[in-house]
Amino acid sequence: MTRSRRVRAAPTIPWLNQPFRHLTNPVTPLNWVTEDGLDKLHDASMRILEEVGMAFMDAEALSLWEKAGAKVDHAAQHVWIDRGLLLELVSHAPPTFTWHARHPDYSLTIGGNHINFAPTAGMPYVSDLRGGRRTGTLADYENFVKLAHTIPFLHFAGGPLVEPQDIPLSLRHLHRMRVMVHTTNKALRSVAHGRVIPEDIVAMLKLVFGDPLPGVVTGAVINVTSPLRLDDRMIGGIIRFARHRQALIITPFIMAGATSPITIPSALAQQNAEALAGIALAQLVNPGTPVVYGGFTQNVDMRSGSPAFSSPEGVWGTLAGAQLARRYHLPYRASGSLTNSPVPDAQAAYESQWALWPAILAHANVILHATGMLEAMLVASYEKFVMDAEALGMFHHLLHNFVINEETLAVHDIAEVGVGGHHFGSARTQANYKTAFYEPALTIRQSFEQWVSLGEQDTLHRAHQLWQDLLRAYEPPPLEQSIQEALDEFITRREGELEGVDLYA
Amino acid sequence: MTRSRRVRAAPTIPWLNQPFRHLTNPVTPLNWVTEDGLDKLHDASMRILEEVGMAFMDAEALSLWEKAGAKVDHAAQHVWIDRGLLLELVSHAPPTFTWHARHPDYSLTIGGNHINFAPTAGMPYVSDLRGGRRTGTLADYENFVKLAHTIPFLHFAGGPLVEPQDIPLSLRHLHRMRVMVHTTNKALRSVAHGRVIPEDIVAMLKLVFGDPLPGVVTGAVINVTSPLRLDDRMIGGIIRFARHRQALIITPFIMAGATSPITIPSALAQQNAEALAGIALAQLVNPGTPVVYGGFTQNVDMRSGSPAFSSPEGVWGTLAGAQLARRYHLPYRASGSLTNSPVPDAQAAYESQWALWPAILAHANVILHATGMLEAMLVASYEKFVMDAEALGMFHHLLHNFVINEETLAVHDIAEVGVGGHHFGSARTQANYKTAFYEPALTIRQSFEQWVSLGEQDTLHRAHQLWQDLLRAYEPPPLEQSIQEALDEFITRREGELEGVDLYA
Repeated sequence: MTRSRRVRAAPTIPWLNQPFRHLTNPVTPLNWVTEDGLDKLHDASMRILEEVGMAFMDAEALSLWEKAGAKVDHAAQHVWIDRGLLLELVSHAPPTFTWHARHPDYSLTIGGNHINFAPTAGMPYVSDLRGGRRTGTLADYENFVKLAHTIPFLHFAGGPLVEPQDIPLSLRHLHRMRVMVHTTNKALRSVAHGRVIPEDIVAMLKLVFGDPLPGVVTGAVINVTSPLRLDDRMIGGIIRFARHRQALIITPFIMAGATSPITIPSALAQQNAEALAGIALAQLVNPGTPVVYGGFTQNVDMRSGSPAFSSPEGVWGTLAGAQLARRYHLPYRASGSLTNSPVPDAQAAYESQWALWPAILAHANVILHATGMLEAMLVASYEKFVMDAEALGMFHHLLHNFVINEETLAVHDIAEVGVGGHHFGSARTQANYKTAFYEPALTIRQSFEQWVSLGEQDTLHRAHQLWQDLLRAYEPPPLEQSIQEALDEFITRREGELEGVDLYA
Repeated sequence: MTRSRRVRAAPTIPWLNQPFRHLTNPVTPLNWVTEDGLDKLHDASMRILEEVGMAFMDAEALSLWEKAGAKVDHAAQHVWIDRGLLLELVSHAPPTFTWHARHPDYSLTIGGNHINFAPTAGMPYVSDLRGGRRTGTLADYENFVKLAHTIPFLHFAGGPLVEPQDIPLSLRHLHRMRVMVHTTNKALRSVAHGRVIPEDIVAMLKLVFGDPLPGVVTGAVINVTSPLRLDDRMIGGIIRFARHRQALIITPFIMAGATSPITIPSALAQQNAEALAGIALAQLVNPGTPVVYGGFTQNVDMRSGSPAFSSPEGVWGTLAGAQLARRYHLPYRASGSLTNSPVPDAQAAYESQWALWPAILAHANVILHATGMLEAMLVASYEKFVMDAEALGMFHHLLHNFVINEETLAVHDIAEVGVGGHHFGSARTQANYKTAFYEPALTIRQSFEQWVSLGEQDTLHRAHQLWQDLLRAYEPPPLEQSIQEALDEFITRREGELEGVDLYA
């Protein structure tokens, strides 16, 4: 929709010739686990919730479970959930829902074979080639929202990309919301920790989207603290977002060998128990609450004790997690751009592909952290952001552009050029060469001699130029004056009320 | 088999704790093209061979085609092949065959769902971090064979990895053979250009494997010079290797927009015509000759005129090519490690994953260039070689280690650790932590502080250390004295005969 203006603003970035596109996967999901294996994973997870149970460290949640008929130990904050109750609750979650953006063209379908890319989230540090590694600020936050807004391959732009550490903890949700509403009209993610923040988020979004809300306008990741524990902060988010029917992406964070047994099947059974327990709680609060089954099962690295981002084990986790989500007719969340690397180098690049490929093959509906991560979720890197975006552009092209028919088979052209000729000058090539192939913005295909003559820039240095060019190409979307004023007024008032307050007390 | 010795020689390289492993793909192939689309590709390719025809620039081949009943224009060196004749010939090629190595444990199965990784081939240049980019030598050649022999994930070690430019062109096949027979007892690829080289190759391998040969002991890539042309050099290789029943990997090299029409379906129809024509010729010479259907269809980059290694278009090529090969019950060849990047950086890493993932998903049986390429097939990089090998190790682990049963589900362990605990100290973790997960040799998972304290080495610098450590860990396999002597004698004699000779005259 803003295509023509973008092209004028930055004609040299090929990505900006591409439209924003809703993406679907044209092939069937890659099922790694057999039906029998899936039955076994399901059954083991049901036994976990029935026999081992799970901690819900929140009085309201315990009371909800008790009323629903689950066995509850209030003193131990422990709940045992029968599979009958659990699956009945999970069945209320919608298989597909719409995630509304401020511009309707950017509104997303979550579920089915739809794929939606979101930038990385929650990074305490940022880095770039010249500025090095440093704590994130609100200015960095704004830059990353601008990049996510400008790159057409990303479906979400708003979200918790970077922790603005120059803003007090209790005020960050306010400042981030102001920046993201001003900076983008693409879909917004947010944070829903405790009870205060989710209510503020919803109140602010009512000022933007109208009251009542048109449906889902935001959503948050809820992490289960594995093994088998949902704390009061996470439960607060579940309860409050469920009441407002905003999306919950329930994601156990499992490192096999540390927060689960050392085998991936066991880790997956535990993931399934934890994810479904959180999803069931959301349905208990408000049946029909839109949820996403989040998979984030990796192994621990036995040398360092760190999580392994990404490993073959993580691929099994992503693929099997998607199969489990499909079994319960739930949308699925996976991750791209995962890496342990401290710098945006070859390891960062290959590890990120090892996260993104299985996420696509699994038919993940929401691919979080699709751009920008370094250091196992500690650093948002400007250069890595655009490196990862190139792969998203390639997947956009891969997933929607292959058509076989008489026209594309072009046997007549083969006959015309004949033996030993070439097609550079043919009418078809001349008519289509600008749009026939995916045109990269970061990848180069020069000869060695050309590359040397242009200064021998490696990918890191080219990426450093590209993200700056993208920031220069950024154009703010329109925002009604009345919305700006209402939002500013709300934020100013809440700043006064929340400064220095412990939001989770 | 050499595992225990290797571990002692280089205890710090985790790869060397892994056994050599025959690899199969446990899941079904990723079929990108519908059955209807596949029918259309097939039909278009048959029309190309029937109506447009193809050049066979070799009198012996033209005569063979004429005797078989094809329409032949001798003056134009042009042949038109009916689909009936073509498919009848193709049907003689075996769907699966054994590729014998000098050590029987290394002998390979080519076909079915077997995957075999081979190092890069035919690179005129080499590069490493300290030595820079330079022309390849026989010493480089030997180094790369040693690396391929030592890394347990590679199934082939011998082959044309690097062009030894310090050896006269007419003698290279002799010197490479001496080095590879001395350096490895893994499976060997070779070059079969013209008529002299293939005969020398077979004569030397008879000295190594015995006469008659036990079956397939080598194989060569035959490139169709697209569009629609097999030159005398390539045809010589087909005819001579087919006579000796050695393997032929018939691979059209197609750049859509240059050597074929600009659409990928058209490029694939042309690829299919060209590959099947070469395969049919081999069967015409000697029915039952083991062949591999080679896919190498990419697009041309319209900015530079270079082939795009790798692109979304190349992914379609790889996946659809495999489906075509399966249609004719032929083993399939794809490529890994493809990249246009001049340096082993992030682009080199992500492009190589964009070649390797689809090759695995497609069920390619032979994955050539799986390690070491830079600059679109011009440079063999020492650092890239080990970067790519890490991904091969990850795929080995991914493809064979996932088992779901009561033991791996380990619900009892989950109950034992319970809520909020950890599994680091559990009996299962303690018993399995050394082997449970894939242990990388290049990838790091340290904290930022550890990484800084260890000298801030990026992947390129770690790779530089790793390939040198691998060379130090190399141990030559035993080689009978009598074989050495017979081979040396043959090579010395042929050196005298071939020095300065144009082998393709």
